[in-house]
Amino acid sequence: MRYSQLFLPTVKEVPAEAEVPSHRLMIRAGFIRKVASGTYAYLPLGWRVLRKIMQIVREEMDAAGAQEISVPILQPLELWQATGRDVDYGENLCVLKDRHGRLNALSPTAEEVFTSLVAAEVSSYKQLPVNLYQINEKFRDEFRPRFGVLRSREFIMKDAYSFDADLDGLDKSYRAMYDAYCRIFDRCGLQYAAVWAESGEMGGSGSQQFTVPCDSGEDVIVQTADGSYAANLEKAPVDPPPEAPAGRDAASAPEEVHTPDVGTIEAVCAFLGTKPEEMIKTLIYAAGEGVVAAVVRGDHDLNEEKLTQALGGKHVELADEETIRRASGAAVGFAGPMGLAEKLDGLVIDPWVAAMASGVAGANRTDYHVRNVVPGRDFPLAGEKVLVTDVRNAVEGDSYQGKKLLFRRGIEIGQVFKLGTKYSRALGATFLDENDQEQPCLMGCYGIGINRIFAAAIELYHDDGGCVLPLGIAPFGVEVLPLNNDKQAVVAEAGRIYDELTAAGVEVLLDDRPVRPGVKFKDADLIGIPLRVVVGERGLRDGNVELKRRTDAEPTLVAASGAVAEVQKVLEGMRD
Amino acid sequence: MRYSQLFLPTVKEVPAEAEVPSHRLMIRAGFIRKVASGTYAYLPLGWRVLRKIMQIVREEMDAAGAQEISVPILQPLELWQATGRDVDYGENLCVLKDRHGRLNALSPTAEEVFTSLVAAEVSSYKQLPVNLYQINEKFRDEFRPRFGVLRSREFIMKDAYSFDADLDGLDKSYRAMYDAYCRIFDRCGLQYAAVWAESGEMGGSGSQQFTVPCDSGEDVIVQTADGSYAANLEKAPVDPPPEAPAGRDAASAPEEVHTPDVGTIEAVCAFLGTKPEEMIKTLIYAAGEGVVAAVVRGDHDLNEEKLTQALGGKHVELADEETIRRASGAAVGFAGPMGLAEKLDGLVIDPWVAAMASGVAGANRTDYHVRNVVPGRDFPLAGEKVLVTDVRNAVEGDSYQGKKLLFRRGIEIGQVFKLGTKYSRALGATFLDENDQEQPCLMGCYGIGINRIFAAAIELYHDDGGCVLPLGIAPFGVEVLPLNNDKQAVVAEAGRIYDELTAAGVEVLLDDRPVRPGVKFKDADLIGIPLRVVVGERGLRDGNVELKRRTDAEPTLVAASGAVAEVQKVLEGMRD
Repeated sequence: MRYSQLFLPTVKEVPAEAEVPSHRLMIRAGFIRKVASGTYAYLPLGWRVLRKIMQIVREEMDAAGAQEISVPILQPLELWQATGRDVDYGENLCVLKDRHGRLNALSPTAEEVFTSLVAAEVSSYKQLPVNLYQINEKFRDEFRPRFGVLRSREFIMKDAYSFDADLDGLDKSYRAMYDAYCRIFDRCGLQYAAVWAESGEMGGSGSQQFTVPCDSGEDVIVQTADGSYAANLEKAPVDPPPEAPAGRDAASAPEEVHTPDVGTIEAVCAFLGTKPEEMIKTLIYAAGEGVVAAVVRGDHDLNEEKLTQALGGKHVELADEETIRRASGAAVGFAGPMGLAEKLDGLVIDPWVAAMASGVAGANRTDYHVRNVVPGRDFPLAGEKVLVTDVRNAVEGDSYQGKKLLFRRGIEIGQVFKLGTKYSRALGATFLDENDQEQPCLMGCYGIGINRIFAAAIELYHDDGGCVLPLGIAPFGVEVLPLNNDKQAVVAEAGRIYDELTAAGVEVLLDDRPVRPGVKFKDADLIGIPLRVVVGERGLRDGNVELKRRTDAEPTLVAASGAVAEVQKVLEGMRD
Repeated sequence: MRYSQLFLPTVKEVPAEAEVPSHRLMIRAGFIRKVASGTYAYLPLGWRVLRKIMQIVREEMDAAGAQEISVPILQPLELWQATGRDVDYGENLCVLKDRHGRLNALSPTAEEVFTSLVAAEVSSYKQLPVNLYQINEKFRDEFRPRFGVLRSREFIMKDAYSFDADLDGLDKSYRAMYDAYCRIFDRCGLQYAAVWAESGEMGGSGSQQFTVPCDSGEDVIVQTADGSYAANLEKAPVDPPPEAPAGRDAASAPEEVHTPDVGTIEAVCAFLGTKPEEMIKTLIYAAGEGVVAAVVRGDHDLNEEKLTQALGGKHVELADEETIRRASGAAVGFAGPMGLAEKLDGLVIDPWVAAMASGVAGANRTDYHVRNVVPGRDFPLAGEKVLVTDVRNAVEGDSYQGKKLLFRRGIEIGQVFKLGTKYSRALGATFLDENDQEQPCLMGCYGIGINRIFAAAIELYHDDGGCVLPLGIAPFGVEVLPLNNDKQAVVAEAGRIYDELTAAGVEVLLDDRPVRPGVKFKDADLIGIPLRVVVGERGLRDGNVELKRRTDAEPTLVAASGAVAEVQKVLEGMRD
């Protein structure tokens, strides 16, 4: 392709809201343009990259035995109500009322539609396994879209769904997808790690997340120092604390203190001169149809995924003000664990609270806290509605199985889930087994964020000059750059190299613009084509052109006559 | 691909709502499944067909110099308001309110977003021309989705937008797209005609529509008997009538008659004993901000596209009951042209009304009509707000340029438009010309309905047995059909032919299912693969297999050893 024919508007300035390198560089390199908050247009070069990624995904999915289909973006809301996921997604689900008043969800994933399809067509174990996938636009009504295409309202996702007759089959399907994902991310040139994850709104029994390590990532990956275990923050378990001090029940009696207008941990600490780790933090949650209290130490963050798992998969959401008032009898910020087990549907206590000698808790009375609250004495650690279990995020200093936990940030690019029978039961995807017994299909689901692969590649590979795109997903493998557009010999030689490489099946960009060499070099660095051939008047006098990989500090001189063969050899080397 | 691995549920029964052959066959052949009213899932075989069509479109668009991009489906409604197209589309536009209360349209086309993109990046004539396209899901909230994927709420459209510096450039861009469309539809194996069309909601100055002739099509194509002119019904002009009879002004005076409860042409005719062609039909329209009356003969249908053009491109819509009452002073069904020119913003009279000797019109009084209404005497045929111009549909018996008009039905599969400056002016897509003068870009837009190509191909090519797919878009070129799955020699020979053809780059489906030959033949006919190789025990004894094109009545015997070469030869022949 000739640069002069390409709609490729590179720019120097980027909007201040572009906080991460991939967002800034995708705008600067003319790959994307913002259309509205959280929606982006992909210009020709950016779209070429996405199409390459999609093609890699397609090839590996097909090779792994999955079959591509396409289901509608507009999905009847009733299907989502049948699994309760309309509630789970909450305001993140885009819902549209049509002219006849029917409600439709804009697909953020498609478990319901795929399961319904299979439910209608599969009736015997002989038809299983089936693995179907699609690659299309998905929608999430993000409260705050950010980081460019990394967290947007509209994005391209590959989603696959496997249906098996038994657990063995599910394990095989899951493993086939896991392996395909590794090949996909390898071919995209990414560094990545697969870590354990919670299955969250998907439901299900096991899940791994593929993450690209990167400081600007939104995900926190937690791993043991020896690397034997890695999980995302939502999943990462924490060893329990040392045992509670003996005899703590004999401590001073609880003492109510007036703490006017200090409803946050920080404010209470400042007011009372306590430390956060001496505080008992009580959070009121709506959980399914009920209301529960979750209790963590003041210096810890509650982990909603862990809370969901502790409650058997119930969707949890911080309760609204009125519910909190009703539950605690006080304004927001003054709840404490005392008396809540009787009043609510559950009291979930983190082990690190259970082991405290004593602490300061809300008094369940507006503007009051209580000192000397002793776990087990002043609120129960056992009982029908009481559960002591890990419900907090891991923090620096924590360990798992006795090994120190380390933290790093990453970008999630894919996730594989064992769903089990949640969807097949809800939507009737059953089959007759070899004994003519009706059984629900065992499902898995498998997602890849196409746009995120692109952004993650730039986060991983860029320098001050711009993008350094991996060959597998670069829009062109080679850029031919004639230095002097007014010199016939230079133009002719660059044209010849361009033509011959193109004829050999190499994707080449020829920068034929009538601009200064400096502009061409700057733009070439910015868009990050892996290999560059510079044709200049001086070099040609000696019969030479320059070859430079985007990662090379200095170019290499090669004979112009052998340049085409040399380029192919270098590309071959980059593929290995 | 092995049939046993394919998710391809063929069925005998189809829902009664499937009225047209393509809808019935796409369901029966396991190409699609309905998800909800007007939305369909494409199963693996159907999706392969769509992907082949998209690839042909992509290759020809690229070859014609257009560049593929991707813009969001979610589009800020403000952009649509800027051009007034939110009103033009009316209830057909899907509108979604996001969690922050912002309104978004789900893209039915994308003039606004493409124009905004170009407006932001193009500033000089040196950057023109630009032609950008995308292939993605589009949405229309159809009042009554029907005919399967032919009129659905969600569909795949290729839409391209060209931006030129002058009319010459626009002509060139338009022509390049027209030619590309011909190549695309040729490669898809379609019969089609390009006919003149109105540009409708797109705005603009010239348009042609590509139509596949087909009895079940929704579009009516009108052409002169000699084929020198063809247009769709919305556009097709009609020769004016013979001149009005002389001396008609001396006819009897108008006479009001009581016509209780007879508000339709048929009812009035029955009541008064008149014929529809003796009636003057007056329709009240909302046109932009104003209200106009359109007058056609009782046996003619008003053509809203022609009315829109007569009013300089104003969007028109039948007025609501209250507006009609206010305009005519009577209930719906009793409007007449008398006195309306003064009262309304316009009176548009069809020439075939203007030439009537006299007629029966509504009296602008509930339950009354008027006899002996003489055009020009009882209502004006000239004046500031009066326009006499062709605003009706052509009918049998009409002529154009003295040539008899013929009618046939068709399916619209694509349309090319000269848009002019409507969008570039509204959205600021301007550039500095060679004299440093700011000019709006001259735009064209070009659409292709991907799903409709698929459906139209089936409408064109099917028989009692099923689909007869053209080679260019068939999911596989060849189906290998071993008759006896229990005979090792048959299975081995079919497998060899399958393997060798696959290795030679031919896309082959191997029906390896353990079912009766009759089932295989039926399914093969149904899904309509162009070429079939039947391997049977009896034939193999003589060293033969059978070749049969889907269009052949009888198979041809060929030596099994030469079957692979013979298949390639036949395929080659089908490509020419």
